[in-house]
Amino acid sequence: MPVPLILTGYGNVGKAFVRLLAEKHEDCRTRYGLEFDLAGIVRKSGAWVAGKIGAFFSLAGPAPIPIESAPGWAPGKSLSEVFEYFDRLGKKGALVECTPSDWRTGEPQLAYLHEAFDRGWHVAAASKGALVVDFKNLREKAWSRNLSLKFSGATAAALPTLDVATMSLAGARILGFEGILTGTTNYILTRLEQGLTFDEALEEAQAKGIAEPDPSMDIDGWDTACKLLLIANAAAGTKFTIKDIAVEGIRKVTARTIQEARASGNSLKLLGWLSEVAGVYRAEVGLVPVPPSHPLYRLTGTSKGIVFRTDTMGHVAVTDGKSDPRATAAALLKDVINIFRRR
Amino acid sequence: MPVPLILTGYGNVGKAFVRLLAEKHEDCRTRYGLEFDLAGIVRKSGAWVAGKIGAFFSLAGPAPIPIESAPGWAPGKSLSEVFEYFDRLGKKGALVECTPSDWRTGEPQLAYLHEAFDRGWHVAAASKGALVVDFKNLREKAWSRNLSLKFSGATAAALPTLDVATMSLAGARILGFEGILTGTTNYILTRLEQGLTFDEALEEAQAKGIAEPDPSMDIDGWDTACKLLLIANAAAGTKFTIKDIAVEGIRKVTARTIQEARASGNSLKLLGWLSEVAGVYRAEVGLVPVPPSHPLYRLTGTSKGIVFRTDTMGHVAVTDGKSDPRATAAALLKDVINIFRRR
Repeated sequence: MPVPLILTGYGNVGKAFVRLLAEKHEDCRTRYGLEFDLAGIVRKSGAWVAGKIGAFFSLAGPAPIPIESAPGWAPGKSLSEVFEYFDRLGKKGALVECTPSDWRTGEPQLAYLHEAFDRGWHVAAASKGALVVDFKNLREKAWSRNLSLKFSGATAAALPTLDVATMSLAGARILGFEGILTGTTNYILTRLEQGLTFDEALEEAQAKGIAEPDPSMDIDGWDTACKLLLIANAAAGTKFTIKDIAVEGIRKVTARTIQEARASGNSLKLLGWLSEVAGVYRAEVGLVPVPPSHPLYRLTGTSKGIVFRTDTMGHVAVTDGKSDPRATAAALLKDVINIFRRR
Repeated sequence: MPVPLILTGYGNVGKAFVRLLAEKHEDCRTRYGLEFDLAGIVRKSGAWVAGKIGAFFSLAGPAPIPIESAPGWAPGKSLSEVFEYFDRLGKKGALVECTPSDWRTGEPQLAYLHEAFDRGWHVAAASKGALVVDFKNLREKAWSRNLSLKFSGATAAALPTLDVATMSLAGARILGFEGILTGTTNYILTRLEQGLTFDEALEEAQAKGIAEPDPSMDIDGWDTACKLLLIANAAAGTKFTIKDIAVEGIRKVTARTIQEARASGNSLKLLGWLSEVAGVYRAEVGLVPVPPSHPLYRLTGTSKGIVFRTDTMGHVAVTDGKSDPRATAAALLKDVINIFRRR
């Protein structure tokens, strides 16, 4: 029996997910006994609903049909209407959420996730907004209904920060962690170490598509802060809101600071970290000189990584992993597989 | 409703598991909604069966009762008899397997695991033997009965090799991996780099309890080969037996080989690796000069690590993690939590 998936958002990540699902469809059947069917796609402008099983392959082929001209596209159709349609068919599955969301209000993702749980659908999310704003309620709602809330795609894509924290360290107490969680800032810092000025490095990162046209979310540390918040709240049981995090970005870093770190053999990194001071967890984002013996030292360019410290398992580091749209799509697919697999 | 656990093996790891379970009992209830009860312990000389829920706490306190004098101990009692007892009570749970096993015959673990699945119990294993010998049949038997077969404790303890390979990289194709999988050999190589002779380094490792009195399993590469086999078969779908792996140990390494690697800026490591040559997977164990940019380069002493290369997620490295009895017990507890958790 195919597992229906509804995709919200059809930008780079959403499109990559459709292509990846078509590519991995048979593999999921063989390896996991799971047949996923992309049954609906919802955008701001309307929604597409598959007329039959496997219809999504026509959106992913070598010459894909634009979704707006595909059979099944209805302008103005909403996610609620799509859910209602599947309710009438008695079908439930997972919502795959890729809509860009506002990390201060969480919308439109927040409404999507609540509705998914209210209607008995699992969630795999790639965008952070709703989770940053309302993680506690969302997770409680999911748990109370025996539904899964996964968001690997929102916490460093292919770098398995959340899997390691919640699955591999299950039963251990997380004493703290520190991570390079934003590729853009690490890239800029690497280029500063190599002699570029901040403006040159930022411009280059923008030209390469590594930094956004408005780079403030990354370079002011908010992207790192959001991921730090999500990993801490999910794995260490904290209840941080974004206001609880002391956030320093990289705008004010100078060649001198960089060189001072270098001179003492260290490398300056923008880290997000959770630490315990006098029995209380603290979450901070800031520039830290990292020594060569540390697992994050060698991470240059857009590479990311995180080191967890635990009571029973020592420290565990996980590093690297791609973060392009295909890798984010792969993180979504992984979450969906792990929600439904029985083996 | 408490989840009954049966422990086979009561050496360092088994005892550490009992203590850890007592310590984490309340935490498992709070965080995962799981109440584990250690309901039986089976040794060669007999078996202990808990008369009531929570009886195992008496084995784990500051002044624990020796198991042979604890109420419920029956000399000569077998695992089959313990299973029969729980069958009559209609109770099923997980077998936690810590018996030292022969990696050429898989016994006595092999019989234990088959019986557990035949009787409808899940398995979390810390010893490798049965899995090296008969993984394919064991996994098929588990899957056909909707039971879990987990063995983090047998594949580098707190270093989550298997979780990352099977959960975090779900849906990705593993193109290959390379790992430092044996702490003992890495420790000896580190000391050789620091100027000791092979015999001095080995003697020191034995004095510190890092190497066994008979160190051949580790230093001839078989420990690495067994872990390589298990990770490859579980994660890449290979069907290797130990005979398929080309294995080189560290006995013949000379100060000169080490220094040659050093002179070119590399560090000589004993790696187990899976690679694909002409569309066919190969598994090998041998000495490899690792360059400074590689995630495994900085791992000295007993540290371990593994780097997976994938089609969709780039490469993902996971390193460090303790490997003492308490950490192995923590890996077993993690597996048991992940088998039963619903959140």
